[in-house]
Amino acid sequence: MEKNTKSYTATWIWYPGDFEIRLHEKMSVVRRARGVMYPAYWRLDRNYSNIKFRYRYELEQEEQIHVMAEGTFSFYLDGKDNYRSADSVITIPAGRHEISISVFNDIETPALFISGPTVWTDSKWEVTSYQNDWKQAGSWTFDTPDNPPSRFRLSTTPHEPTSVTIHDGYPLLDFGRETFGYLRFHNMKGTGTVRVYYGESMAEALSPEECVTLDRFEARDASKGGENEIYTLKEAKAFRYVWIHADPEVSWGHISMLYEYVPVEYQSSFECSDPKMNEIYEMSLYTLHLNTREFFLDGIKRDRWVWSGDAYQAFLMNYYSFFDLDVTRRTLVALRGKDPLTMHINTILDYSLYWFISLYDYYQYTGDFEFIQQYYDRAVSLMDFCLKQRNEEGLVEGRQEDWVFVDWADFNNDGAVSTEQILLVRGLEAMSLFASLMGEDATAKNYSVLGEEIKSKTLRLFWDDEKGGLLHHRVEGETKPTLTKHASMFAMTYDYLSPEQRDSVIRNVMLNPDVPKIRTPYMRFHELAVLCESGAHDFVRREILSYWGGMIELGATTFWEEYDPSLADDAHYGMYGVKFGKSLCHAWGAGPIYILGKYFLGVTPTSPGYETYRIAPNLGGLEHMKGTLPTGAGQVSVEMDLSTISVESTSGTGILTFSSSESPVCNEGEIREVGNCSYEVTIEAGKKYRVSYQLMK
Amino acid sequence: MEKNTKSYTATWIWYPGDFEIRLHEKMSVVRRARGVMYPAYWRLDRNYSNIKFRYRYELEQEEQIHVMAEGTFSFYLDGKDNYRSADSVITIPAGRHEISISVFNDIETPALFISGPTVWTDSKWEVTSYQNDWKQAGSWTFDTPDNPPSRFRLSTTPHEPTSVTIHDGYPLLDFGRETFGYLRFHNMKGTGTVRVYYGESMAEALSPEECVTLDRFEARDASKGGENEIYTLKEAKAFRYVWIHADPEVSWGHISMLYEYVPVEYQSSFECSDPKMNEIYEMSLYTLHLNTREFFLDGIKRDRWVWSGDAYQAFLMNYYSFFDLDVTRRTLVALRGKDPLTMHINTILDYSLYWFISLYDYYQYTGDFEFIQQYYDRAVSLMDFCLKQRNEEGLVEGRQEDWVFVDWADFNNDGAVSTEQILLVRGLEAMSLFASLMGEDATAKNYSVLGEEIKSKTLRLFWDDEKGGLLHHRVEGETKPTLTKHASMFAMTYDYLSPEQRDSVIRNVMLNPDVPKIRTPYMRFHELAVLCESGAHDFVRREILSYWGGMIELGATTFWEEYDPSLADDAHYGMYGVKFGKSLCHAWGAGPIYILGKYFLGVTPTSPGYETYRIAPNLGGLEHMKGTLPTGAGQVSVEMDLSTISVESTSGTGILTFSSSESPVCNEGEIREVGNCSYEVTIEAGKKYRVSYQLMK
Repeated sequence: MEKNTKSYTATWIWYPGDFEIRLHEKMSVVRRARGVMYPAYWRLDRNYSNIKFRYRYELEQEEQIHVMAEGTFSFYLDGKDNYRSADSVITIPAGRHEISISVFNDIETPALFISGPTVWTDSKWEVTSYQNDWKQAGSWTFDTPDNPPSRFRLSTTPHEPTSVTIHDGYPLLDFGRETFGYLRFHNMKGTGTVRVYYGESMAEALSPEECVTLDRFEARDASKGGENEIYTLKEAKAFRYVWIHADPEVSWGHISMLYEYVPVEYQSSFECSDPKMNEIYEMSLYTLHLNTREFFLDGIKRDRWVWSGDAYQAFLMNYYSFFDLDVTRRTLVALRGKDPLTMHINTILDYSLYWFISLYDYYQYTGDFEFIQQYYDRAVSLMDFCLKQRNEEGLVEGRQEDWVFVDWADFNNDGAVSTEQILLVRGLEAMSLFASLMGEDATAKNYSVLGEEIKSKTLRLFWDDEKGGLLHHRVEGETKPTLTKHASMFAMTYDYLSPEQRDSVIRNVMLNPDVPKIRTPYMRFHELAVLCESGAHDFVRREILSYWGGMIELGATTFWEEYDPSLADDAHYGMYGVKFGKSLCHAWGAGPIYILGKYFLGVTPTSPGYETYRIAPNLGGLEHMKGTLPTGAGQVSVEMDLSTISVESTSGTGILTFSSSESPVCNEGEIREVGNCSYEVTIEAGKKYRVSYQLMK
Repeated sequence: MEKNTKSYTATWIWYPGDFEIRLHEKMSVVRRARGVMYPAYWRLDRNYSNIKFRYRYELEQEEQIHVMAEGTFSFYLDGKDNYRSADSVITIPAGRHEISISVFNDIETPALFISGPTVWTDSKWEVTSYQNDWKQAGSWTFDTPDNPPSRFRLSTTPHEPTSVTIHDGYPLLDFGRETFGYLRFHNMKGTGTVRVYYGESMAEALSPEECVTLDRFEARDASKGGENEIYTLKEAKAFRYVWIHADPEVSWGHISMLYEYVPVEYQSSFECSDPKMNEIYEMSLYTLHLNTREFFLDGIKRDRWVWSGDAYQAFLMNYYSFFDLDVTRRTLVALRGKDPLTMHINTILDYSLYWFISLYDYYQYTGDFEFIQQYYDRAVSLMDFCLKQRNEEGLVEGRQEDWVFVDWADFNNDGAVSTEQILLVRGLEAMSLFASLMGEDATAKNYSVLGEEIKSKTLRLFWDDEKGGLLHHRVEGETKPTLTKHASMFAMTYDYLSPEQRDSVIRNVMLNPDVPKIRTPYMRFHELAVLCESGAHDFVRREILSYWGGMIELGATTFWEEYDPSLADDAHYGMYGVKFGKSLCHAWGAGPIYILGKYFLGVTPTSPGYETYRIAPNLGGLEHMKGTLPTGAGQVSVEMDLSTISVESTSGTGILTFSSSESPVCNEGEIREVGNCSYEVTIEAGKKYRVSYQLMK
C-alpha cells in the first residue's frame, strides 16, 4: 500500500469544516461593548457532535495502534458494531479490514488521533455525520497527540509599552502603535479594584465613560502568586493606549502586554523613491497582519467578526503579502457555515456573492483544486439559495429580511441593484469553472449560460448611454436614474464592458466629480484598482498619498474603517453615533498592499497557482521602485526605474510586459514587440532579466 | 396590561425545541455495549448557541428586574445595541420599551430567567436564532432561578435487592423485577477492582463474557468517604440482576440501588375476572413506565434511543395510562429535530410518516392546538421532504440511503411499499387538519386532495381481489404478488376500506394461517387493534393471554422486544446475533394497555381533547371488568359484567354504545336504539349511569 512507504505522519482528523466552524462560533462572541458581550447577529453554526470515521487497511501482520480522541470514542471492526472497544491501545488483525470509530463530543469538535506502525489517521480517512455523507476527513497541522484541535491558540510574545505618563493621577501607557493582546501586571500587590480603559486613540483611553473597550478586576485575584508573578488579563483586546485606574492600596511592578498574532511570513516587500508611500505600504502590512487571526476580521476592536465582503479584500491583499492560505481557508469555510441556508452570509446579499468570487480568486492564486473539491457541494447549495431569490425578470433582489449593502453610502437599494447582478454573474462564472474542474460539464455549461444571460440582461437594462455608465437599481421593471460608481466599477474589474464602455466609465463615472464620492477604504479598494486597470497609475498614486497619507498625518499607526478628511480632530473617531465607534485598525484599510503589488509591481497569475503569470510594472509617477511578491511555490522580484526593469522569479513562467518610447534591450531574453510601443519578454524561473527601456511620457 | 393582574410566575425560557433537542443529544449516547459507548447512528441535532430574546412592556413607573442566564447574556433597550448591560439587577425605565437580551451558550441550551414586580420571563417573550424567525419562547416547569433547564434530571428513590445469593463465590443480587437506575455500594472499604455484570435475566448477569451491560471501578475511588458513606455508580443501567466480582481486599456493608424514573401518575386501572389478564395489564404499565423517561425509549437496556415508530405506540399507550404529555411533547420535538432534512427520522421512511400520525393523535387526545401551532412549520418541512421522495407514479419510495422498515420480517421492501403509502395518506390527513387549524384553508385543501389521490391510487394498484387484501409492494410499475398483513391492517385502522374489503381482510388476511405470522409485539399491537375493530375481542383476549402470558410463564417481569414461543430456554434472550441482545423491557411490549383501554373498556375521543368521546365496552369473553381511563381534563370509569354496564365521567360528553339481546334499562339516561340490537346512552359528566343489558351470544 502507498502509505507503508511514507514516514510516520499521524494527524488529528475531524469532520471537514467542523474545526473552522467551531472556532468561528467561539470567535464570534469575543467582541465587547464596554465589557459586555456583543455577539455576531447571524446564526452561528455548530460542529456535529456525533460522527464516525472509517478506514480500510490491508496488513500482512497484526499491529498495535494507539487511539486518542477529543470526546468519547468507540472502535469496531468490519461493521460488527456490537463488539466495540474504547481501549487506548488496540491490536488490529492482519488481512483486509475496515476500522470504524464513532466519536461523540458535545463541547468541542470531535476529533481522532491514531498512530501505529503502518495505520494512522490522516486525510485518507473518511468521516460521516450519519447523513449518508462519507467525506474525506478534515485535518491540518495538529500532528502530535498532545496538540488536539480544541487547544488551538494563536502565538503570543511579550511587548513593553514605549511610554508611561500620568494623567489625572493615573498612568497612561502607550504601546507605540496599535496592537492586540493581553495586558499583564507584574508583581501586583494590595487589595482593591483595578479599572483598565483601552483606546485605539489616546482620546479614547482617556475617556472612561465612552471608551469602547474596558476591563475591571480585583487586585487580590491578581496577587495570589509570589514575587515576579505575572497576572495576565483573560481577554485579548485591541488598543494602543491603556489608562489604568487602580484603587490607592493597589500597586504593581510594571505593566506589559502579551501580543497575540498569527506567525505569518512577510513574503512581500515594496520600496520606492517616495518615503511616504513606503510608510503607507508598511502600515498596510501591519494593519492586515493585525486582522489576520483565527480568521480574517473586519477590525480588531470592532466588530471582531468575520464578514465576507471584508474578507474578499483581505484575501486579495494576503495573496500580495503573507500568502497565508490557512487563514484564507479557515475564513472561507467559516463564512459558508452549514445548511440550511435561510439567510445570506452575514445577512447580506452581496456577501453571499463575494464568497464565490473569493473562492474563484483562491483557485486562481493557489491552484488548490483539492479545497475546491472538498467544499464544492457547499458552493452549489449556496448558489441554489442565491438563484432562488431572483425576481420575475430573473434579476437577484434582496428579500424583506436581507441586507443589500453595496457600500456605506446614502443610496436606495430597493429592487434589483445592478452591482448585485454583476457580482452574481461573476459568481456564476466561478461556479462554472468549479463544475468543470469537478468534471460536471453539463452543470458547468448551465452556470455559464445563465451567467451570460444575466450579464447581457444587466448591461441592457442598466447601461445609460447618456450618463455613460451603469445605473444603480431597477424597481418593479423600471430602471431608476441614479448613477453610482459601484456597478460600473465591478463590471470593469470583471471585464464585462466593451472598450468604448470602459472609456466612458472612466471619463463619465470614475473621474466625474458629480457622481457621489466613495468614502470607505472598502470601495476605494475597487475604485483604485479600476483606475489602475485603465492606466491611471499616477492619479492613483496621488490618491493613495492623500487618502492614506492623510490618516498618517492624523497620527494613525494602522488604517481606519473610514476616513473623511473634512472632519476635525476627535470627530474622526466616531461612527454609528458612538463617540469612539470607528475601528482604527480595519482590514479593508490595507488596500495599498493590493494596489501596489498588483498594479505597480504589476504581478498577476494568468493560470491557476501562478503556473503562468504576467508582470506589468508601472512606476505611476515614482522614480524607482523595487519589491518582491509571493506566488505560492516561490516569488517574483521586480525592480524598476526610469530606464531599467529587472525581474527574477523562482517558479512558473512569466510574461514581462512594458511600454518603451525607444527600442528596449535585454541580454537575457528575447524582446517581442506586441503593438504600439508595447513589448514582452518571457521570464523563466531561476534567471535574472534586465531590460533597458525608455519611460513613455 | 394583562400580566399585571397575574401572580408572580417567572420561568426559564429558551429557543423553542432546544431544551428537548439538547436533552436528546445527551440521551442518544448513553447506550453502552459492554462498557463502550454505542451512540445513535443518525445525525444528532444541536441547540442554537446564539439567540436573542425580546419583550415589549409598558410601565407606569420604572422597576428593578433580576436577570439570570444559562450562558453569557447581554441586555439592551429599544434596539440601542451599543449600550449593553450584563448586570444581574437592572432598572428598566417607565413607559413603552422593548427589552432585547442576547444569550450565548456553547455547552448547554442558552436560557433566560428574569423576575421583576411586573416584568418577568414567560412564554409571552419572543426569541430568534437570527434567522428572521421570531418565535414564542419555549418554557416548561423551570420556575425558580436555581432550577435551570440544564439541571433537569429524572427523579430517584432508593430500592433494596429482594435477595442476595452467592454464585461461584460472588454475590448475585436480585432486585425482584426489571428496574433502572444507579447501583450503590454502602460503606466500601479496601483496595482493588470491582466488576459489575448486569442482567435483565439471571443468565445474562451470570455471563461476564457476554452480558451486554457491565461496570468496573476501583474500590479506592468509592471508599473516600467515612462511615455510612454511599458510593453511587456514575451511569444508570437497566437490570434485574447484578453479579459483583470484587478483588479479595474489597468489602462493603451492602448494595442497593437508586431507582430512576419519571414520577408519572398511574391514571388508569383495569381489573377483570381473569387474574392472568390483570397481571398482564399491571406488567404492561410497569414496562411502559420504565420506558417513559426523558423521552419514550424503545427499550431501557437496548437501544435506549428514541425511535419514532416505537414512540408512536408508546404515545397511544400513554393516553390510556399516565397521560403524561410532557414526555410526549419532548419526544415529538426531539424526533423532528432540526433542518436541513437530509435523512428520514431514525433513517427510516415509515418513521418519518409515523411522526405526523403521532402528532395527529396528540391533537385528538389532548386538543392542544398551541403545541401544533408552535411546531407546524417543522411539520410542513418534514412533509415537503417526504413528498419529494415519490416515484413517477406519485408513490413514496425509499432512496438508496433510506431504511424501509415496516417490521422485523423477511420481506422485500423494494420499490413502493403499500404500507408506506397508507401511512403517507394518514400523514397528509394530519397535515390537512393542522393547516386548517392554522387557518390555511388552501393548503389544507391541497394536502387533503393529494391524500385522497394517493389513497385511491394505492387501493387501485395494490388491492388484489383474488387474495382479498393489499399486496406488499410494487417495483418499476409492477405490483408483486406478495401478500402481507401490514398494509391491510393500517388501511383498516385508518378506515380506508369498504365494508366488503374489511370483511375480506379479516377473513383472508388477518385470520389466514397462510399469510406470514407477525412475531413482534410492535406489529401485534396493530394486528390486535384491527381484530378488535372488527369485533374479534374474544380472539384477541386469548391471543393476549397466550402471547403476553407466555412471556410471564418464562419469568418475564416486563415485556420483551420480541417473543417466539417456539424457542427454548435462554435462546429467548438472544437477538441480532448477540447472546443477550434482546431487550427484555421494550415499550412496544406494553400494547395490552392500549388494547384493553381502547377496545375492552372501549374509550376513544371523538373530538379533540375528549370534549366528546365514545365508550364501547366489550368483555371479549371476560366475565366482568372494571377500569378507569384518563381523558386529560378528567377521567372515565367503566364497569361491566354479563348483565350490567356502569359508567361515570368527570368531564366532556360521552356516548355509551353497546349491544344487548334484550331491551336494556337505564334509570339515569335515555337509551336510544341505533340499529340491530345496538343502543346508545349519552353520558354527561358528573353523573353515574347504570345500564342493565343482556350480553349477546
